[in-house]
Amino acid sequence: MEGKARLYVPATLANLGSGFDALGVALDLYLEVEAEPAGEDAFHYEGEGRVEGTDNLVHQGYRAGMRALGLCPEPLRIRTFNPIPLARGMGSSSAALVAGVALADRFSRGRLGRDGVFRVAAGLEGHPDNVAPAVYGGFVAALADPPLAIPLPRPEGVRFVLAVPPYEVPTPLARAALPERVSLKDAVFNLARSALWPAALFSGRLSALREACRDRLHQPYRAGLMPGASEAIDRALEAGALAAFVGGAGPAVAALVEEAHTLAVVQALEAYRGEGRTLVLGLGEGYFWKET
Amino acid sequence: MEGKARLYVPATLANLGSGFDALGVALDLYLEVEAEPAGEDAFHYEGEGRVEGTDNLVHQGYRAGMRALGLCPEPLRIRTFNPIPLARGMGSSSAALVAGVALADRFSRGRLGRDGVFRVAAGLEGHPDNVAPAVYGGFVAALADPPLAIPLPRPEGVRFVLAVPPYEVPTPLARAALPERVSLKDAVFNLARSALWPAALFSGRLSALREACRDRLHQPYRAGLMPGASEAIDRALEAGALAAFVGGAGPAVAALVEEAHTLAVVQALEAYRGEGRTLVLGLGEGYFWKET
Repeated sequence: MEGKARLYVPATLANLGSGFDALGVALDLYLEVEAEPAGEDAFHYEGEGRVEGTDNLVHQGYRAGMRALGLCPEPLRIRTFNPIPLARGMGSSSAALVAGVALADRFSRGRLGRDGVFRVAAGLEGHPDNVAPAVYGGFVAALADPPLAIPLPRPEGVRFVLAVPPYEVPTPLARAALPERVSLKDAVFNLARSALWPAALFSGRLSALREACRDRLHQPYRAGLMPGASEAIDRALEAGALAAFVGGAGPAVAALVEEAHTLAVVQALEAYRGEGRTLVLGLGEGYFWKET
Repeated sequence: MEGKARLYVPATLANLGSGFDALGVALDLYLEVEAEPAGEDAFHYEGEGRVEGTDNLVHQGYRAGMRALGLCPEPLRIRTFNPIPLARGMGSSSAALVAGVALADRFSRGRLGRDGVFRVAAGLEGHPDNVAPAVYGGFVAALADPPLAIPLPRPEGVRFVLAVPPYEVPTPLARAALPERVSLKDAVFNLARSALWPAALFSGRLSALREACRDRLHQPYRAGLMPGASEAIDRALEAGALAAFVGGAGPAVAALVEEAHTLAVVQALEAYRGEGRTLVLGLGEGYFWKET
């Protein structure tokens, strides 16, 4: 690595309601990572929750990135500061994985490139909807197989209000709540709406997002894991949110709002947040480095 | 109606592969309609196939449009020339319905407007994917409930090659071939790809359309109704098509091509067309009037 630099990788919201495993958005809340070659792997973690040991996602992403390049992963001492709540549906795991792959890109002097970082990270995750916005920033439509990501426009003057309950929903538990089969009608309900997300963002018809965010494929099945989420979504929309949905596997509920509605939506989500936190966050950039 | 005028309503392709009941596109092949008040309803049809009697879709659309306006439908003498092949997946029924609603708009001196014509026609059809492009032209992402349509960009220098077999697939039969339930995996496969259509068209990344057009929710189940369609799609893509899919309920197979690949794709689809026809058509406009 040339000189000292710090890596920033954004928190992300996957699914955006209808776009299960396909759509995501980056938030301006960043995992910070520093790394340097060392005699053996070491990992220092500061921030949300507790993560210990060297078999962490940052090292895993780094090793996968190096292997994708045909390079031998050298031991690294990695320090992270993580402000992203863990297991709340805000993409903390994907941020760590993307950070690791971005480290491999940097240690190889950019041989992966941003698209290569996306391909490796999407291959590790299997689902591209957190990884793609962590890499490219803003709203992204993505596939994992084949790896493909198309950044979407970022509307001016919008931000996310997030109600983050105090409890965790581990992603495997949330996956287990999903059915194997769904009605064709529900499948069509979602696919029509997931196409509305890019159409609305590109055309500037933000009023269509209220319909675009509706979901029948995952949120209803996970209702038991995050009591009140569906009602919180309804209340946020009633309070003027452009769109509202469960962030990734939850339990965070996210509402996209224009400035004038921010306070009303914050209040509408207070009951759901409970003993947790409310975050108001702008759209985030894809991962970037700052020289220190 | 002020003076004499002729109405033009485009043929359309629904679904675009992944976007079942949600995405569609207009072609520059137009149903032509003239109408005038008369003592009683009369219908003169010229063109593809045979359609007789006064209980036709143009009159039905007209009466629905007038009722939506709270007006009494006066008897009309309607003359149509229809070059759109019937029951082939090219939107001949939707064109007739839209024509009728557009007549109601004209006879009411524009009280429905284009958005009103879409709302009434989408309500009659239940599925908006043929109706929306027939109204707005080009590519459209649409919902029927609530009625919502977002026109998408029209790439320069592209056209459709259509292989139209000689036999019909009635839409009710094609609907009956669909399962009630599908795997969540297939639902996610399609919703991710249907979001890619608007993302690719707006961003100009037309290479993503090859993935965007892939479908697991309807084409596989209807394979028995249109033998060889899946192979024809593969051959069109191998010959350089940007995208290829079954038009609506089939059996027409449509390939979106850039000029340089037109001939190769025409040839690739010849076996599927069989004793039928190949059409090469540009993108169409939404319905319009010409004074005569």
